[in-house]
Amino acid sequence: MKKTGQSIKFQEKISIASMSSIVGPMEGEGPLKNYFDVVLSDIMNGEDSWEKGEGKITADALALAIKKSGRKREEIDYIICGDLLNQSVSSTYGARDMGIPFFGVFGACSTIGEAMTLGAMLLDGGFAQNILVGASSHFCAAEKQFRFPLELGSQRAPTSSWTVTGCGAAVLSRQGEGPYITGATTGIIVDLGITDVNNMAAAMAPAAVETLRAHFKDYGAKPKDYDLIITGDLGYLGKDIVLRLMGNAGYDLSNNYTDCGIEIFNREKQKTRNGGSGCACSAVTLAGCFFDKLKKCELNKILFVPTGALMSQTSVQQGESIPGIAHAVVIET
Amino acid sequence: MKKTGQSIKFQEKISIASMSSIVGPMEGEGPLKNYFDVVLSDIMNGEDSWEKGEGKITADALALAIKKSGRKREEIDYIICGDLLNQSVSSTYGARDMGIPFFGVFGACSTIGEAMTLGAMLLDGGFAQNILVGASSHFCAAEKQFRFPLELGSQRAPTSSWTVTGCGAAVLSRQGEGPYITGATTGIIVDLGITDVNNMAAAMAPAAVETLRAHFKDYGAKPKDYDLIITGDLGYLGKDIVLRLMGNAGYDLSNNYTDCGIEIFNREKQKTRNGGSGCACSAVTLAGCFFDKLKKCELNKILFVPTGALMSQTSVQQGESIPGIAHAVVIET
Repeated sequence: MKKTGQSIKFQEKISIASMSSIVGPMEGEGPLKNYFDVVLSDIMNGEDSWEKGEGKITADALALAIKKSGRKREEIDYIICGDLLNQSVSSTYGARDMGIPFFGVFGACSTIGEAMTLGAMLLDGGFAQNILVGASSHFCAAEKQFRFPLELGSQRAPTSSWTVTGCGAAVLSRQGEGPYITGATTGIIVDLGITDVNNMAAAMAPAAVETLRAHFKDYGAKPKDYDLIITGDLGYLGKDIVLRLMGNAGYDLSNNYTDCGIEIFNREKQKTRNGGSGCACSAVTLAGCFFDKLKKCELNKILFVPTGALMSQTSVQQGESIPGIAHAVVIET
Repeated sequence: MKKTGQSIKFQEKISIASMSSIVGPMEGEGPLKNYFDVVLSDIMNGEDSWEKGEGKITADALALAIKKSGRKREEIDYIICGDLLNQSVSSTYGARDMGIPFFGVFGACSTIGEAMTLGAMLLDGGFAQNILVGASSHFCAAEKQFRFPLELGSQRAPTSSWTVTGCGAAVLSRQGEGPYITGATTGIIVDLGITDVNNMAAAMAPAAVETLRAHFKDYGAKPKDYDLIITGDLGYLGKDIVLRLMGNAGYDLSNNYTDCGIEIFNREKQKTRNGGSGCACSAVTLAGCFFDKLKKCELNKILFVPTGALMSQTSVQQGESIPGIAHAVVIET
């Protein structure tokens, strides 16, 4: 068994052979703008609907990850991909023309963590040589689906976050150089009763804390064993909750912890309130910024913990609280 | 490598330690009524909405599969589960209180095939001892979400199928007796341009044909190597398409092929038009009927091929065609 508690350690070196990132115009004006492969000038990406635009972003990011990996399309054994849209249509339409065996996954904004974990497991288990993983989201499509029509110009709650437009993808491989995925801690669903869809940070932070605690316990590790610990899209409010709850549990994250939702936007200039969110938030921030820093050995060991809120518009309208989940992935050079 | 083309063969014997099936009242009046563990008298399952009812069905079916397996909840390493509802809320709310690491999957009505394939891979790869898989759907929730409000009493198209209410779940294990999952062929996305949401059979059948052809080619197998080949929810129309297209390709399925959508309802008495569909269709038909026949060695080797249509209401309204997918799982005693 390669598993202890909720955590596994891989026996093979699972290379992240390439990562690709395509983002929308607003992400291209943020602090990470120089890290992304493609910054779209048109949030529709040349399509006639937001949903089709997101699907095209996914298709382009998946193809770009393959190209950057130096692999041929025929060498990719599986695609593992997901998004926020109903029935994950960005992923399925994005992967439709690729002719590669396809596994759809849903972990809301934790999706890239789930996809990387499953991908690394399938590679380590000997079922594939190369696996393409990805996750996408789109600000306009998400606002339309989960909140209000954009045309209403609704006022945003101070606790609300800004869904990142984009797709982050990666080719994982049994062969190749680092950075490597060396382990993972898969999250359980945590629901502390939050019902405010404008406060996803509060719904997801307890799940991140649960996964982080499980990880440190299973690994016998401490926060300082990592150069950086990075949650997915908790933003400023969620980071505060994680810092406090982890502190209470005896884990001091104050020196080496950040959140992708904080990194991707300039809070003051871009007025993104609590920060970035959406499946693409952690996916493009890893693919753009942190993957580059790992490649350059500015970082050598990170714990990447995408977070997701597993509700639907219907479940919230029916008075259900919002379950959260977080999946941790260990990435080393 | 354990992979040839799109197909894998497992090295370990992956036991299906248990299967559970909970179905709605109408499924309980069909030809398979005596096979199911639980037939609900109330399609709401005691909840105040269809969606919550489906979530409760999922929770109950997951718990029942664990109970029937003789395992304790703490012995289950992962849950892999999915459904048709927006953001897969039946699965996430159904698994919310279990405290087990959770992977959400989306393959529309092929979901149980995807979950069983991934589950068997994770077990064979040494990442788990026991994995709980499941898939659910609900007639009323699906009609509301994908088609028309039930209260309208809309006339059903002759090609339409009837979404099965229920959940089928299984505990897969590295230890235990048969039947065993011995292999799998993972589908690619196939889209031949069908845009009629009342004719899912036509959208999905080509994907089933693609997966079947890939399976026979990769395995060097013939249809007669199986006691029974079972697609997911193609119904009468889809079965005809599969028989014809496979026949054209040189594979005669006329003696040992059926479809879960045909098996689960009595077409004449229950007026289900093309037959049953939905994630639960193949999941409960396998869990109820075919698993029982495998246990009793009335069947010794089956090819189970759940099929899925990967569209959303939005994608169809925007004029997109309907991509299909099918995942084949080899089950032997």
